[in-house]
Amino acid sequence: MAHGRRSRIESLSNPLVKRMRLLREKRHRRAEGLFLAEGLRIATEAREAGVLPAWLFLGEEGAAHPLARALIDATLAAGGEVIDTTPAILSKLSGKDNPQTVVGIYAEPSATLADLDRNAAPIWLVAERLRDPGNLGTMLRTADAIGAGGLILLDESTDPYGVEAVRASMGAIFTQALVQARWDDFLPWLRSGPGQLVATWLADDTLDYQAVRYEAPTFILIGNESQGMPESYAAAADVRVKMPMMGKADSLNAAVAAAVMAYEVLNQRRR
Amino acid sequence: MAHGRRSRIESLSNPLVKRMRLLREKRHRRAEGLFLAEGLRIATEAREAGVLPAWLFLGEEGAAHPLARALIDATLAAGGEVIDTTPAILSKLSGKDNPQTVVGIYAEPSATLADLDRNAAPIWLVAERLRDPGNLGTMLRTADAIGAGGLILLDESTDPYGVEAVRASMGAIFTQALVQARWDDFLPWLRSGPGQLVATWLADDTLDYQAVRYEAPTFILIGNESQGMPESYAAAADVRVKMPMMGKADSLNAAVAAAVMAYEVLNQRRR
Repeated sequence: MAHGRRSRIESLSNPLVKRMRLLREKRHRRAEGLFLAEGLRIATEAREAGVLPAWLFLGEEGAAHPLARALIDATLAAGGEVIDTTPAILSKLSGKDNPQTVVGIYAEPSATLADLDRNAAPIWLVAERLRDPGNLGTMLRTADAIGAGGLILLDESTDPYGVEAVRASMGAIFTQALVQARWDDFLPWLRSGPGQLVATWLADDTLDYQAVRYEAPTFILIGNESQGMPESYAAAADVRVKMPMMGKADSLNAAVAAAVMAYEVLNQRRR
Repeated sequence: MAHGRRSRIESLSNPLVKRMRLLREKRHRRAEGLFLAEGLRIATEAREAGVLPAWLFLGEEGAAHPLARALIDATLAAGGEVIDTTPAILSKLSGKDNPQTVVGIYAEPSATLADLDRNAAPIWLVAERLRDPGNLGTMLRTADAIGAGGLILLDESTDPYGVEAVRASMGAIFTQALVQARWDDFLPWLRSGPGQLVATWLADDTLDYQAVRYEAPTFILIGNESQGMPESYAAAADVRVKMPMMGKADSLNAAVAAAVMAYEVLNQRRR
């Protein structure tokens, strides 16, 4: 096994720091194939899922934390670099005034539909043109909670490797499969094997979400936050369902809708 | 009925514009007793709930929208001022580069626990030290969707009248009752009448959230995003419940947890 090294960086003009801070921008993440995750808790979730950073930046407090030892050892054993650094550099990396004292730089996974084992989990989340990174991260977190296999992002969605999405995922970015695909590729892939596609779709003839018996693997399709999904996507689903809406609103937040649906599917499986 | 007036403001240094842009800061909202809501859709939700702005700022596009007519008429009839203005001023008010073309300035409601009719709705949401304005707005939106009476915010929570919370509520800030209270005042109020307090609490002896029969009015208590609620709060609840957690995570996003719980209570009532 390769062994990494431990070093110290204190200069704000250090070339590695300059390069890594650019990872807050999507085009640099894409170019480097790297993303940034803040916080000892998330880094520990990643480690427990077998994912280690290429670079691990530690402030004094982070390095001294009881959980940091295992993270440092595992990072070095995997060939990564552990860098002791200053609060100012951690601020520069994270773009925050009060940064976490642990920042990890990770390789971006690049799974495709062909890499997914749909039978590995009974539930999968599918989101179409998801715009809000907080919603994306929250969906990953929910997917983890319900024992889903992962999240499939359709068409032009927000970047799952942005800092806000990673943070909202609470580490689930490392435990859930994540695939970005176009609808035109997703649908043939879905139909090439078992799988029930369930669209959340508010219309008069849509079934109540509790009136349907879900079949594994269940693919829960959630549409864009403001427009919902195209009618053709809903029409291609095996079933269209809606949650009861008792008030003035005609929709739920996308991450909330995904969770309410997902728990119904899970609850049916628990019975 | 008082009749308001319609005017035009084009100068960025107009005193009213300077004053209203300060409403993005909590201390100015408190001092003025006013808050700002962006978007024709939210302003229309407000109008339908009988709430009209003290000032209604309209860009050209906003003023020309078919829904704007009813909003303008109702605002004037209620004594409010309708102000035709420029994109630059709308940007200044909202703090955004691409502002909505409708911005309403509304009086902050100041309901207290004594104002609530607990029997007016079967479900109420209660959040303790809620930190994230997006979560707060999302909870209001969910509360509206499930036919709740409103949201009770305990202890030091984020300001529900901040722009982000108002936006995430999708208008539910105008349709749901909203009360800010301390736990020490909430608990005696709760016990002075009917009401089942249900705490989401992850512990070994906590009941599965589907194993409990909920009684109306049900008060669903959700704890702080990172720490959960104090043990004493959970102990004071009538029942402690948990959602199944099948993955690595030991909690859900606060707004997601509130929604999953709330739909279970609603679903029991629908059966």
